Amino acid sequence: MGETRRRNGVETRAEILRVALDLFTTQGYESTSLRQISDELGIQKASLYYYFPGKEDIVRPGFAARGSEAQTLLEWAKAQPAAPDLLRRTVLRWVDTFSVEKLRGIRFVNANPTLMRTIALDSSAAIRDPLEGLVALLGDSYLGADRVLLRMAFLSINAAAAAAAAGTPDQEIVAAARRASLAILDALSVA
Amino acid sequence: MGETRRRNGVETRAEILRVALDLFTTQGYESTSLRQISDELGIQKASLYYYFPGKEDIVRPGFAARGSEAQTLLEWAKAQPAAPDLLRRTVLRWVDTFSVEKLRGIRFVNANPTLMRTIALDSSAAIRDPLEGLVALLGDSYLGADRVLLRMAFLSINAAAAAAAAGTPDQEIVAAARRASLAILDALSVA
Repeated sequence: MGETRRRNGVETRAEILRVALDLFTTQGYESTSLRQISDELGIQKASLYYYFPGKEDIVRPGFAARGSEAQTLLEWAKAQPAAPDLLRRTVLRWVDTFSVEKLRGIRFVNANPTLMRTIALDSSAAIRDPLEGLVALLGDSYLGADRVLLRMAFLSINAAAAAAAAGTPDQEIVAAARRASLAILDALSVA
Repeated sequence: MGETRRRNGVETRAEILRVALDLFTTQGYESTSLRQISDELGIQKASLYYYFPGKEDIVRPGFAARGSEAQTLLEWAKAQPAAPDLLRRTVLRWVDTFSVEKLRGIRFVNANPTLMRTIALDSSAAIRDPLEGLVALLGDSYLGADRVLLRMAFLSINAAAAAAAAGTPDQEIVAAARRASLAILDALSVA
């Protein structure tokens, strides 16, 4: 895309993240070099290094951001007064926020499954642990299959991403995930 | 387990498949040797070779069986008269049959993701292609998010397996998958 338009640091950083994650997803993390990312962006390799000294530095912020989002949601849910619709509101907060970023992360993980066992494992736990906390907090009275359904309601974006045909627009996947979450929550036995 | 009880060939074969797939799933396909499988079963390595000359021979039958099941379901659905509940009956046939075997296969695939890109890729397509055929046959009038939801209804066992906590009994996962499929089908827009 070149640098004909003057970009500020935040924009450049976001653009690098988007392009690099796309490359990591389509051709694999291991097979993608920093050189290739800078070429794809039409920027100097030195500029890329300025923002991200290594490939791991590109991957970690996304996980950290989603982990922080999950942690914030857990704290929010803990602070709410008990209410019949708290579970539903909490699930929808997770499904409705940063949905496209979540999809991007899920696709990256699915394309680089073994990577998650090494470098990004701690980042992955940073998302999983607060979600576990939410299940424990809100799902205490749901047992057996209901407990599995409650987890499925939280993870509908993952399921929708896995089920959707290649090339399905993000907004259709996100819309399906939202409707699936609502349908699954309605199917829970009354707690 | 030893061979104190006399087993016939069919039983022995099934037992080898079960034990080997468990080992492939818990410690990885590459890290598991035929020797270890025969030790775990308490049988001679020669007996194991008699049934399965190599590790791939252990993995392929499961995929072939599920692929054949999906193909049979597609042919069954094609032979049915058009009816409002045909989609629902077809999805439930997929979700309700060989559910535990499906779970076992899904766990194996999730534990050995890169393997699916090499040896078992054609086996995986043997399942995916007939399921695609079912989506095309029954989901023609479902577009956008509805199309994604239709796929999610077929793949509820996969989603339930991914969402369930470690150690969740198979029957709870299968029950959740069934209820999720029904809930998602109910959430489809009227075609």
